Amino acid sequence: MQSKYKINSARLMGRLRSLSKIGQNKAGGIDRQLASAADAEARKWLINCWKNELGLLVKIDPIANLWAEAAKNNTSQKPIVLGSHHDTVPNGGMFDGALGVLMATEVMQTLLENQVSLEHPLRLVSFTGEEPNSFAVSTLGTKVLSGRLRTEDLLQIKDRSTGESLQNAISRLGGDILQAEAARLPPDSIAGFLECHIEQGRRLFDRQDAVAAVTCITGIYREIITIIGEANHAGTTQLENRKDALSAAAEVCLAVEDIMRNSDFEDVAATIGRIFIEPNASNIIPGTAVLTLDLRTADPQKRQRALKKLGESLQEIAARRKIRIDRSLNLDQPEMPMDSVIIESITEAAVENGENNRLLVSMAGHDAANMARLTKAGMLFVQSVDGYSHCPQEHTHEAEIITAANVMLDAVLLLDRRLA
Amino acid sequence: MQSKYKINSARLMGRLRSLSKIGQNKAGGIDRQLASAADAEARKWLINCWKNELGLLVKIDPIANLWAEAAKNNTSQKPIVLGSHHDTVPNGGMFDGALGVLMATEVMQTLLENQVSLEHPLRLVSFTGEEPNSFAVSTLGTKVLSGRLRTEDLLQIKDRSTGESLQNAISRLGGDILQAEAARLPPDSIAGFLECHIEQGRRLFDRQDAVAAVTCITGIYREIITIIGEANHAGTTQLENRKDALSAAAEVCLAVEDIMRNSDFEDVAATIGRIFIEPNASNIIPGTAVLTLDLRTADPQKRQRALKKLGESLQEIAARRKIRIDRSLNLDQPEMPMDSVIIESITEAAVENGENNRLLVSMAGHDAANMARLTKAGMLFVQSVDGYSHCPQEHTHEAEIITAANVMLDAVLLLDRRLA
Repeated sequence: MQSKYKINSARLMGRLRSLSKIGQNKAGGIDRQLASAADAEARKWLINCWKNELGLLVKIDPIANLWAEAAKNNTSQKPIVLGSHHDTVPNGGMFDGALGVLMATEVMQTLLENQVSLEHPLRLVSFTGEEPNSFAVSTLGTKVLSGRLRTEDLLQIKDRSTGESLQNAISRLGGDILQAEAARLPPDSIAGFLECHIEQGRRLFDRQDAVAAVTCITGIYREIITIIGEANHAGTTQLENRKDALSAAAEVCLAVEDIMRNSDFEDVAATIGRIFIEPNASNIIPGTAVLTLDLRTADPQKRQRALKKLGESLQEIAARRKIRIDRSLNLDQPEMPMDSVIIESITEAAVENGENNRLLVSMAGHDAANMARLTKAGMLFVQSVDGYSHCPQEHTHEAEIITAANVMLDAVLLLDRRLA
Repeated sequence: MQSKYKINSARLMGRLRSLSKIGQNKAGGIDRQLASAADAEARKWLINCWKNELGLLVKIDPIANLWAEAAKNNTSQKPIVLGSHHDTVPNGGMFDGALGVLMATEVMQTLLENQVSLEHPLRLVSFTGEEPNSFAVSTLGTKVLSGRLRTEDLLQIKDRSTGESLQNAISRLGGDILQAEAARLPPDSIAGFLECHIEQGRRLFDRQDAVAAVTCITGIYREIITIIGEANHAGTTQLENRKDALSAAAEVCLAVEDIMRNSDFEDVAATIGRIFIEPNASNIIPGTAVLTLDLRTADPQKRQRALKKLGESLQEIAARRKIRIDRSLNLDQPEMPMDSVIIESITEAAVENGENNRLLVSMAGHDAANMARLTKAGMLFVQSVDGYSHCPQEHTHEAEIITAANVMLDAVLLLDRRLA
């Protein structure tokens, strides 16, 4: 049954527009990368909102995650945490992350205004450095919360462009990575975590669904594929004497694409997103090529079969072309199932709000995958128009935003009864 | 009939070794790029050799080409010019260029020592900046001699690494590009030009031939192929929605390679040596790819047919993948036939020296292609062991060097009788 409470859509949309001005560039994109001036300004804006418009107590933890909750709670239950992140990729959109933080804020404010008494205290969060950034570490805040990154790791990290240490950058944001261990959340210290996020794909848009519950966050596997041929003169080297690393790389790229074309590997995403060749000169046959493979699936058995198939293709290419292909693991992040109580609460709330009972795998990584190591975690996806994300065209219509916010509100009410 | 004169092989080999010390790096390669300290030192060494060991008069022209001839000639005929270049690519070999300069020097010295009286005066040359270099202009010296580059063009050129103007660099070498027009050689001011050079391929090595006469210097055609797809999320974008510029580029690379595999295009060399993709990030589907095509053949009709075939492949790829492929011309250097009198004199001299009557197309560009715009020009190729060039493994055995030098000597004697 749909609850009697409704979020304030004008307030939510107004805050979305206000936050989108921070870091907005001339192209209409948002530049609000980790530790940028816009990141710092967005944090000030958010702290002000939480303190002065919701009357919450705000804390900055040692990795500079922002937390907010009511000063007094008349319950000894563990909190339900709601939130997302406020940073963006370079020239990103205004919904990725920000929508999740502001929707959580709106849900909490609606409940406060209506003086709804919950079993669990609510806690808001905006995580530090979720997006890929110049420090080459994404979901930074939740990696520290979940103990995946410790002080000794953090002290090694530097901005690849400016050379600034992460320690200094986090200190500018009010954190202190020497105290990072203190930011770790003990398992079972919170009752559950719920994040709303844009889908970033077009599955909801194509089906005209507003929202879905995420069943699982994809595993992400990356390897570096190094192809070692022989650089030689582009004029004087005949075909039979060529060991062209780029021609071999071309066959590797198409073998990777073929994985997605194979019906055995439905819902596997496989991409070569990076290539570097040497010497990269117009009159020299490429001697080496270095590719990065990104392979995603929620099904570890499919991943193994896809990698086996790809391995066979690579061996065949190397043998036929008499070149060497080396492979090295770069990332092996397992798939992370979302909690079934949260999934059911989201779909139930969606149906109560007139939506379909839609379930999706998230093919992008999210902070919720790290939070799932600590607590029951779940995600509510909202439609992305045309599937665009990480670009100025990223868009979600107001109607779907309002639906998602009311679904989230109702899901929180269900979870308050269902979570321990 | 083989002449009674023989070059001094110990002297030639000794000079090759001495010159190879200038700019030699720890890997055994030679770093003697245009206007480097090693370039300047090699020039001093060469001027000293020509002045003090051969007693010649040395001149440096406005583009810093080095010229040498006897102070007095008892003939009013136009000179026969012999030479090559002394610069190298980064980490290049000790034979490319240097062998041609020192072989010309040895041929002249042998004739002087034997007091051979020729109809034509001989003139030695070592050209400026033949190799690709950081000023992004190759065969610089002969482009100025032949009027392909003028002062106004030269004043635009800067070192892409250091920003130094070419004007300054040439002035450090004793030239003056403000006077570049004065370096232009009037057509028919010389009787002919002969250059010995390593083959840089393995056609002579595979057939165990020491030398060949070059019939034609390949045409070099380059275009930039820009593939415009759509950057998107590597996880959330399904295959049917992808416009992956790298997958399309992979098909383009293989279509280019297929040209070389096609028997209709024998002796066509086609290479993609450069690729840049954007955004080149492991979790983003590539949105654009920029390739450089290098296509070489001595037969302009074959080139046209190969480009037509490639154009059809590119159109098919673009249409099937719903992406855009733009092509723009980057270089269109026509093939340059060598002079028949010089070709015949070389092959005749080769046969007199017990070698086969071997003819080859040069698939690399050379200064001789520019000299052919001014005069009768020809090239003598000498075997490259395993076909290596532009690398420390570049090698030519002493036996083939000596054969080539004696062939060159005899070819010069024939040309002295045959050229106007």
